[in-house]
Amino acid sequence: MEHENPSPTGVVLMNLGGPRTLREVGPFLHSLFSDREIIRLPAQSALGPLIARLRTPRLEKVYAGIGGGSPLYDWTVRQGEGLVKRLDVLSPQTAPHRFYLAFRYTEPSSAQALRRMAADGVRRVVAFPQYPQYSCSTTGSSLHELWASARRLRLDTAFRWSVVDRWSTHPAYVQAMAAKVREGLAEFPESERDDVVVLFSAHSLPQRVINRGDPYLQEVAGTVRDVMRELGDRQEHVLCFQADVGPVTWQGPNTESVIRSLGKQGRRNILIVGIIFTTDHLDTLSEIDVEFAEAAEEAGVARFRRAPAPNDDPLFLDAMAQVVADHLAAGIPCGPQFGLRCAGCADPACREILNPVRPDPAGLDPAGTDPAGSGTSAPGAAP
Amino acid sequence: MEHENPSPTGVVLMNLGGPRTLREVGPFLHSLFSDREIIRLPAQSALGPLIARLRTPRLEKVYAGIGGGSPLYDWTVRQGEGLVKRLDVLSPQTAPHRFYLAFRYTEPSSAQALRRMAADGVRRVVAFPQYPQYSCSTTGSSLHELWASARRLRLDTAFRWSVVDRWSTHPAYVQAMAAKVREGLAEFPESERDDVVVLFSAHSLPQRVINRGDPYLQEVAGTVRDVMRELGDRQEHVLCFQADVGPVTWQGPNTESVIRSLGKQGRRNILIVGIIFTTDHLDTLSEIDVEFAEAAEEAGVARFRRAPAPNDDPLFLDAMAQVVADHLAAGIPCGPQFGLRCAGCADPACREILNPVRPDPAGLDPAGTDPAGSGTSAPGAAP
Repeated sequence: MEHENPSPTGVVLMNLGGPRTLREVGPFLHSLFSDREIIRLPAQSALGPLIARLRTPRLEKVYAGIGGGSPLYDWTVRQGEGLVKRLDVLSPQTAPHRFYLAFRYTEPSSAQALRRMAADGVRRVVAFPQYPQYSCSTTGSSLHELWASARRLRLDTAFRWSVVDRWSTHPAYVQAMAAKVREGLAEFPESERDDVVVLFSAHSLPQRVINRGDPYLQEVAGTVRDVMRELGDRQEHVLCFQADVGPVTWQGPNTESVIRSLGKQGRRNILIVGIIFTTDHLDTLSEIDVEFAEAAEEAGVARFRRAPAPNDDPLFLDAMAQVVADHLAAGIPCGPQFGLRCAGCADPACREILNPVRPDPAGLDPAGTDPAGSGTSAPGAAP
Repeated sequence: MEHENPSPTGVVLMNLGGPRTLREVGPFLHSLFSDREIIRLPAQSALGPLIARLRTPRLEKVYAGIGGGSPLYDWTVRQGEGLVKRLDVLSPQTAPHRFYLAFRYTEPSSAQALRRMAADGVRRVVAFPQYPQYSCSTTGSSLHELWASARRLRLDTAFRWSVVDRWSTHPAYVQAMAAKVREGLAEFPESERDDVVVLFSAHSLPQRVINRGDPYLQEVAGTVRDVMRELGDRQEHVLCFQADVGPVTWQGPNTESVIRSLGKQGRRNILIVGIIFTTDHLDTLSEIDVEFAEAAEEAGVARFRRAPAPNDDPLFLDAMAQVVADHLAAGIPCGPQFGLRCAGCADPACREILNPVRPDPAGLDPAGTDPAGSGTSAPGAAP
């Protein structure tokens, strides 16, 4: 087997990234405020770094409060290890599998992932954004950076690519998230469980992005719907949005306001579920566990609990592996919704897949054997 | 059977209402602009009627363009007839069933429905809002008006009430809506069908209402999710929002903008689905069929089609009956989500059910036999 398919299948785990140490906080913010796909500023090349510098001391303090850095890297490595081990079993025909991290605003970067894959002799790669719910500001930005890096490194024809562009309603993911909600509910005394309000909290997006037609909102609400169905549609629940900072208008309702208001109404039991997050990081460990917990206490909420983040939960690793295995088995370059650009999108090259795998049942068409398929092309609708 | 249960079970079909003739346009607008649960104006009692008067001529012209009035009344009567016929078969233990219309801004009013039910000897009533997706500005407003009317008429203990507070994800409703989408897709040449973008268009809501915690957004997105799943998750689709007028900020993306932008991107096939509407009325016959169709043509969309509204589709009438039959069989005063007030709600009497049915398996506890249950009480969580 090893000899028949010596070239490993690469799986690139893409995420925002987070500073692993306090010294990385400054460069992280600098990189974040330079990305026009996530933040638009006038005179961005000057103003972005300035804002980053101004915000660094405060964010260093916040990271100091959660142990001196983001655990995102460590969790993602553990997820990657669990993923490829499972994939080798689920999809022996594409084994061996190797995972590579590509973070958008900290190291390891897309360029590092690409160089390592080239060194490892990888030819077939699955881009696997760790954002189950597609948004141009997350998955879109990460993919653009990945393709741009490949071109800069002259590796644009080195790999055959496909993209798990979203997995917000994959049954295995939904079941894994529902299990985390059940774990959270189990933290309440049985007598109080019917009274628990479940807050599904997602990172917010500026209204401007939603109004452009970004699919994030419908994706997040879709996950919530499927998780609630999986849980039997019994529990009171609210979809709300956190992490809205700065002067723009964000999608509401705002999670902290909802917590404060429910407390004022006399609700005593709140379970918060970071519905879009696949690992713990600042939004869960600090914004939810510290800031929102304080708000809940001030508002008289007696029991404020958070459903654990997936992290290295074996059920979640099973789900990740099933998502990629199903994707590989389908042999398609992307899902059926990927080709639909946001209505207000002005970039005709958006939704590009660099040197995409050809839609054949095995999905194993090696790079270079098909001239029509090589080079860059935008994906058509999947069959 | 008739002798054992001579008192008919009432089903009150609640809706916004619409002017049946051009002469009713003025009073309709007057009533609409006086409802503080749907529109908030300074000095509403003076400004509301003024705005209504100013808008009347334009709206008369629009209604003239769709045949001189709203077909809402006629469709609702046909739905009611189909509903009770089916209910008598599905739920013989609560037969006979009679339906009553209660429109919010035109006749027949809540008061008329209540008086007729009293005359018919009805004691057990199901409030069945014709808004599958709950919002305080629609279902909430209609229910408040219903309870207020009952009190004004001193009929507050005349009936035992339960409320189908939402049916946005009832499987029968989802299947009926998916069937309408399939009908719409069938209007495109088979060769074009994979290219069709499905726009699920819902009436918009002001951001202020969303930010207060109104569940409408998650309800609408839930229906879209379930319908897409029912359709096999294959078609490109966008959730968007129409009918945003006036100076406030509305939930986006705006349907007309999405149509224009997709046209500009070169998309040639659009199917629009009025996902929250149960009958044709102004929003489908004029806003979609006239205004949006013009916008689509201007933008170069070759085929712009609308999935038919449910109206008197037998599959939809089956769904309505199944929703009410399941509700009656459950014997509960409301669904599990009804008791959860919007986080920003300032009205402790919100989510009231007047003289609610007691949660017993038959749901048939007659009015007056249980002193603890009579009078007004807010609903607890359903078991």
